[in-house]
Amino acid sequence: MRDVAIVGVGTTQFGRAQWSLLKMMCEASHDAITDARIGDREIDGIFVANMGAGRNNKTLGIASALVDRMNLYPTPAEAIENGPASGASAVKTGYMAVASGMCDLVLVCGGERMREVNNLEATECVSYISHRYAEYVYGVTLPALAGMFARLYMQKYGVTQEHLAMVAIKNHDHGFVNRKAHIRERVTMEGLLHGPDVANNNPYVADPLRFYDCCPVSDGASAVLLAPASMAGDFAKRPVRIAGVGQATDCQAVHERPDPTELPAVRIAAQKAFQMAGLTPADIDVCELHDAFTILEIAESEECGFFPKGEGHKALERGETRLGGKLPISPSGGLKARGHPVGNTGVSQIVELVLQLRGEAGPYQVPSAKRGFAVNFGGFGNNVVATVLSEGV
Amino acid sequence: MRDVAIVGVGTTQFGRAQWSLLKMMCEASHDAITDARIGDREIDGIFVANMGAGRNNKTLGIASALVDRMNLYPTPAEAIENGPASGASAVKTGYMAVASGMCDLVLVCGGERMREVNNLEATECVSYISHRYAEYVYGVTLPALAGMFARLYMQKYGVTQEHLAMVAIKNHDHGFVNRKAHIRERVTMEGLLHGPDVANNNPYVADPLRFYDCCPVSDGASAVLLAPASMAGDFAKRPVRIAGVGQATDCQAVHERPDPTELPAVRIAAQKAFQMAGLTPADIDVCELHDAFTILEIAESEECGFFPKGEGHKALERGETRLGGKLPISPSGGLKARGHPVGNTGVSQIVELVLQLRGEAGPYQVPSAKRGFAVNFGGFGNNVVATVLSEGV
Repeated sequence: MRDVAIVGVGTTQFGRAQWSLLKMMCEASHDAITDARIGDREIDGIFVANMGAGRNNKTLGIASALVDRMNLYPTPAEAIENGPASGASAVKTGYMAVASGMCDLVLVCGGERMREVNNLEATECVSYISHRYAEYVYGVTLPALAGMFARLYMQKYGVTQEHLAMVAIKNHDHGFVNRKAHIRERVTMEGLLHGPDVANNNPYVADPLRFYDCCPVSDGASAVLLAPASMAGDFAKRPVRIAGVGQATDCQAVHERPDPTELPAVRIAAQKAFQMAGLTPADIDVCELHDAFTILEIAESEECGFFPKGEGHKALERGETRLGGKLPISPSGGLKARGHPVGNTGVSQIVELVLQLRGEAGPYQVPSAKRGFAVNFGGFGNNVVATVLSEGV
Repeated sequence: MRDVAIVGVGTTQFGRAQWSLLKMMCEASHDAITDARIGDREIDGIFVANMGAGRNNKTLGIASALVDRMNLYPTPAEAIENGPASGASAVKTGYMAVASGMCDLVLVCGGERMREVNNLEATECVSYISHRYAEYVYGVTLPALAGMFARLYMQKYGVTQEHLAMVAIKNHDHGFVNRKAHIRERVTMEGLLHGPDVANNNPYVADPLRFYDCCPVSDGASAVLLAPASMAGDFAKRPVRIAGVGQATDCQAVHERPDPTELPAVRIAAQKAFQMAGLTPADIDVCELHDAFTILEIAESEECGFFPKGEGHKALERGETRLGGKLPISPSGGLKARGHPVGNTGVSQIVELVLQLRGEAGPYQVPSAKRGFAVNFGGFGNNVVATVLSEGV
């Protein structure tokens, strides 16, 4: 297998899109192509990450549509669907295409336009990733699953609502300086939990999770260009190597898991990614975790091996996961503030890490970051992809 | 890159499913696993082919759901969406996974349950693969596009409605003896075009295409197991090698193509597949083409190089493409009679070819077939995957 480098990245503004899904995807793809300055080199493989276009955007065969709008035919293209982990799955597929020698220059583009439908419809769409007969038919939504998970986790490990709020405060602080972020506001413990109008400002969504414990419903597209590491010198920017990719699945219905507070798919995916990279959690300088709900950042930070089980909230309390701390988690603002265009999120995490490893993250740069790590969490933790990136080739 | 073999196949009955989409997919997957007798070997990669589950079956993250129902976690899994060519795209992706060395034993399972919604809804869903702003918003459906294509083709090459009917008659004759086929009835020229009650029996759907020029709306699932050719001897059945895979895209809006009667994506995909296999059309003993509409079988048979352009209908007339002829096309009955569970069709074509190359096709066996060829046609010909299979490794 050949080593694979990321030689270009691009991303749109996240939030409520003014343009169609395909126009967003074209913008991100053009940005990645421009970033790499591919010149007259030919893209010979395209993988699109998307979850809900067939439901929310009346679009199927979305990879073919992107090829058409970008005038890239006859380049082969297909879309990868893996729920909220579609993005990292598409990067993994692009990795396989280059590593195997099937392709030399691959475009991976993620895009999701959730806000073409209303919030209820968007929540319904996301709930399609739950077990249809053991969860969905009973009206379970993803916030509901996360609420139950949070309650158990808090009881077991002494995590409090203040800890959950700390994740939100940190990630909104991070996202405040990311000009592509969906939500650019700072929040305080006073405002989230102890102020006079908490019931209105930060109502319960799924007890114990409040409004600010949940990521927004976002539109957005991101893209990366992949090439064999041996050709990485041909492009404009310093390459970043895909050092490890790990993926694991789990039992789908959360209540059927032996211990619903464990996320074995996160653990196994991270272990596989570290093993492939020949690295350990201690080697990582920056990471982007999948904080669709605040509790998930804490749980993932433990399952990935950055902190012992049950200790993630203590590291958070000590400020270790904040920009400037020992291991900054989601300096981009994460899903919480940057936003969560579901099928695209995994691609956007990789884009953020590449900016960090190139030293181009500007106001949210982690000083001299050399190695990055991302977790893209599909289903409610039943299909997880972890990726390790390393600066240079 | 390693050579890749198909070591197991399975398929459900096609038609109107009595079971859920996932149950069908489990059945096909179990059949493939049983067929190969994998023993205690571990499946280490799963690729699912599906197009419309997010719209028609309230299911996303479908690959994770299959892993759960099959109790195959923590095996990595994702779904591939490429419209009606999703099936062959998933086989291609599985091929990459094994060829690259990322995986050793890969399950590719296609499944589509169209009939969970009514026929209008199913037609609407399929129309999502057309250009959203240049075709879909004007109410164009796939039968409408095929009707316009057929009219132009007939005028240009002297193809008649009798020729279209000959495709239907041939493929229904073939499907009549395939016990997994959706439609098991024979039809005649008298019944289709010249009988007393043609307007009722075979009404126009999109002039010049009549009811029997269109494939049915089908449910069905199929699966193949892939392994490195070097390990193929470990399994129960004679292996079939994936000798070539070619894929090409094209301009999406049919009316924007320089010549709408040309299908360059079919031509390029076939050329690439033949080139990779080191074979020519003359080496092929049996093929499965994508006859979603009768006219497409004729056009594809030419674009793939089996007959000169404009001569396909003459070969059909001479009986060359019938079982017993020089190049039997779709002995399984094709999409026309076997059925067209959209996202699954490409996988089912490969299953049919494997049965032929193993000599297990029973009443529709092509004698001593050694090499097979399939075309899986996505969009209206704007994303096409061609596959060449070869008996033995």
